[in-house]
Amino acid sequence: MVIFLSKYLIWGEFMNDSDKFKLTGADALVQTLADLGVDSCFANPGTSEMQLIAALDKESRIKSVLCLFEGVATGAADGYARISGKPAMTLLHLGPGYLNGGANIHNAFRAKSPMINVVGDHAVTHQRYDAPLASDIIGLAASTSRWIKSVDKVEQAGHLATEAWEACHGPEPGPVSLVLPADSAWKEGGRKGAMVQAPELRRPSQEKIETAVQAIKTTKSPMILMNGSALSETGLKHAAKLKANGIRIMIDTFAPKIARGAGRFLPDRMHYFAEGAMQDLKDCDLMILAGTKAPVAFFAYPDRPSLLVPDGCKVVSLGGFDTDSEKILFELVQAFGIENSAPLANRICPDKPAGKLSGTTIGTSIARYLPSNAIVSDDGVSNSIGCYFATVNAEPHDWLMLTGGAIGQGMPVALGAALAAPDRKVLCLSGDGAGMYTCQSLWSMARENVDVTTIVFVNHSYRILNIEQSRTGATDSGHVAKSMLDLSNPEIDWVSLAQSMGVPSTLCTTAEEFDSAIERAFSKEGPSLIAALLNE
Amino acid sequence: MVIFLSKYLIWGEFMNDSDKFKLTGADALVQTLADLGVDSCFANPGTSEMQLIAALDKESRIKSVLCLFEGVATGAADGYARISGKPAMTLLHLGPGYLNGGANIHNAFRAKSPMINVVGDHAVTHQRYDAPLASDIIGLAASTSRWIKSVDKVEQAGHLATEAWEACHGPEPGPVSLVLPADSAWKEGGRKGAMVQAPELRRPSQEKIETAVQAIKTTKSPMILMNGSALSETGLKHAAKLKANGIRIMIDTFAPKIARGAGRFLPDRMHYFAEGAMQDLKDCDLMILAGTKAPVAFFAYPDRPSLLVPDGCKVVSLGGFDTDSEKILFELVQAFGIENSAPLANRICPDKPAGKLSGTTIGTSIARYLPSNAIVSDDGVSNSIGCYFATVNAEPHDWLMLTGGAIGQGMPVALGAALAAPDRKVLCLSGDGAGMYTCQSLWSMARENVDVTTIVFVNHSYRILNIEQSRTGATDSGHVAKSMLDLSNPEIDWVSLAQSMGVPSTLCTTAEEFDSAIERAFSKEGPSLIAALLNE
Repeated sequence: MVIFLSKYLIWGEFMNDSDKFKLTGADALVQTLADLGVDSCFANPGTSEMQLIAALDKESRIKSVLCLFEGVATGAADGYARISGKPAMTLLHLGPGYLNGGANIHNAFRAKSPMINVVGDHAVTHQRYDAPLASDIIGLAASTSRWIKSVDKVEQAGHLATEAWEACHGPEPGPVSLVLPADSAWKEGGRKGAMVQAPELRRPSQEKIETAVQAIKTTKSPMILMNGSALSETGLKHAAKLKANGIRIMIDTFAPKIARGAGRFLPDRMHYFAEGAMQDLKDCDLMILAGTKAPVAFFAYPDRPSLLVPDGCKVVSLGGFDTDSEKILFELVQAFGIENSAPLANRICPDKPAGKLSGTTIGTSIARYLPSNAIVSDDGVSNSIGCYFATVNAEPHDWLMLTGGAIGQGMPVALGAALAAPDRKVLCLSGDGAGMYTCQSLWSMARENVDVTTIVFVNHSYRILNIEQSRTGATDSGHVAKSMLDLSNPEIDWVSLAQSMGVPSTLCTTAEEFDSAIERAFSKEGPSLIAALLNE
Repeated sequence: MVIFLSKYLIWGEFMNDSDKFKLTGADALVQTLADLGVDSCFANPGTSEMQLIAALDKESRIKSVLCLFEGVATGAADGYARISGKPAMTLLHLGPGYLNGGANIHNAFRAKSPMINVVGDHAVTHQRYDAPLASDIIGLAASTSRWIKSVDKVEQAGHLATEAWEACHGPEPGPVSLVLPADSAWKEGGRKGAMVQAPELRRPSQEKIETAVQAIKTTKSPMILMNGSALSETGLKHAAKLKANGIRIMIDTFAPKIARGAGRFLPDRMHYFAEGAMQDLKDCDLMILAGTKAPVAFFAYPDRPSLLVPDGCKVVSLGGFDTDSEKILFELVQAFGIENSAPLANRICPDKPAGKLSGTTIGTSIARYLPSNAIVSDDGVSNSIGCYFATVNAEPHDWLMLTGGAIGQGMPVALGAALAAPDRKVLCLSGDGAGMYTCQSLWSMARENVDVTTIVFVNHSYRILNIEQSRTGATDSGHVAKSMLDLSNPEIDWVSLAQSMGVPSTLCTTAEEFDSAIERAFSKEGPSLIAALLNE
């Protein structure tokens, strides 16, 4: 045994011999990720990532996409993961690069999107000197990372790349941070990491399924609240059967991705505001959780509940974000032996809208022209809800939502989604306030010539905050409040802004103009932007 | 004594009585800061900051400035502090708001700029539910905060506001984070905090001064490396005297602010690259530190030193960033009894440049027209160094540098500097790569009608990275490397971009065009932008 072990080690050493002396740490990291199937890198590199760039130059299996701001890179990696199911890597420049990308990493963390954030750090030997860009990367990144480690020795680069890749898959997937100090990047002696299988989502427990079945049978108004894989086309077919069996089906207010449109079952969506949710749920006496947790208000308000579970309602969890909720629904259908199904949505093409432009008329036009199998990236805040409801009977599509509440997600996610699925049309819905957060995305859209149509809801206002302001008990809206929620001075010219970054753009002020514009945009390939001036 | 103490407490309670039942926590926080002299707030608020907005509505002493991205707000607070010497407050929306503002907080941390980042958090009662925007604010903000606390009880709001204000002043000044949970913000029961004196920079120790004087007398090539208050007009007058006494005077490569131009003494500036610095310092046998620390290379490179102190050179620190370095120089001058001074810069107006546009020709034109007492915010990366050297003999001005290495600082700092000094012309120098990080600044410049002329060095490239790439030992520049450092596909139309946000803008392609454009820009008030197309 000892002899065998020694031989094995020697053999291992021997096999790695040629690599061992030639691969830099950056090479080992990049090649390991490529071996594991990573094929995309969203980057805004700096000096401490130059060796990673050199490594990417040697690795033809990974496509690198330049972003002008790290928040674009991390949001794009999120969108890429939501559509491909695979992690992309990002390149972030020390602590400040991570901070810049941090809000969209937070959103990806909430979306359970696998993502490998590779952060170039100072050389280990340099860290003690507190140079201007020195920062506590582990500290500031830990809370938005499912896993975080630093390659403090070059030999670890490949091994930790494997660990990072594995960790981002879960069982609860999410962003991980792999810190690569510059000396570990430039030194030779890197070794490629092992090939491993990605962890899968947990399977539901049969015992819990049986508990849930019994509970459903003995309650009056049971419901299933679901998220995750249950929102796939297949998951929703199971859901439609459960619905036919008298169980109410709901999804969280925000989900990373849901299959919608013709041929799909449309579940109810939790109300955003606590009072709406509580009113809607008031008769519910059993809440089954599938791939999510008990619903919580987005914000707390005086005298309103945080936990959106009615008094006396029993909660049974069949598994959280770490569990395959599509399988949960399947097991429930099997347990009940259900054959029939609630109706699925039909394709209904609405009439051309007319008059004033609003979220609803925009949604109506989208429903008319949205190509089959399109992807919608929704950062439209208060205005996109009209589009959501208007597109129930559109051609089948996937809808990606703002998961973490940090606006500025929509355009980057659209970029990444389009790169993950070059043959699918991507529609981005963005508020004007949200869009200004990561407007640099437009440049990468033009550079990569992705097939993304971006609609900006131009109301020159943080409209959602005007609603929230009236709800917080702050009743007197003085000039500071008005000014802080107002984007009209000066009005942003979205057409010029988009064109300055190479994206063809047009302004629409009526429902008719918009209808023609979106028809044109969907009939062509490549990036375009429609500034939809709302006058409500 | 006990009786007196009780009486004092009762009296205190009594005096606060009317406030105690009427002030919300947000009111107490805002009014305390206003009492302490805070007069500016740079904000991108969200729902959890609505009560702070309501409090600002009642507080006419604080001017609120809306920024479309938190990185603009934090950079503006930095610029404001560098010019006024006073902290501004910012409003940041939970963890993601802090992350978005984080890179410029990092820069402000390095600049030793006082700043009070007020972060709205979820209500304490809501935090346990892990709502979508929940985040570990203390964890992610700690490493870029000199002080950080959360107002978990409404009664603490004013007291912690006082603590935060005090802490940001130092002795080593910098950004602090004051977290305000929503329930502490909306509840009544807030009490205003105490009025305190701001801590001052430490005074130099006489004993250390004497040690330094002896060391200077017994070495051949002494130098003083300085930063902080020594770079004021007065500090530099002392420095000129020390120079006349045979001591070499240097400043760090990057300083928050230095007084320059006619009538000021121009110290040497540390080389950016380690090999340049070591070559320049090779004969130095004594390094006196005044308001800084021993010099360190910006990045590490294989086989190059991190610490930029020659072998055999003695280092004597008279105080770091917590010490008043202007006073250090004064004490040294007194100790030596120096009367004479090295020459100060004269005003020399250079001839109008001609031909190709470059950093140097741009600097020459700036030197011709820069108004007296102007402020320069420098985020020009590789191109602004030409402007720096070309403006030695310009009218007197202050030059603000990129302190933390996180690009995207220049425009926000210019915005804040202009609001701190409405009667001074502000010139912003920005690389095109740097400018795209926080281009939303232009909108706030237009909104506030600040007197800022922004020059964008348009070379369609991360030029500094092309230089760095060749230095890291990564010799083969393949297509990935070329693509990641290239901004030319598509070319960004800076004139349209600026105009889309309300800033009048012009493109210049020759030295002559630029000379006319900058003359025009400086002869008018209000924001403008010059896109300087470099063809080198």
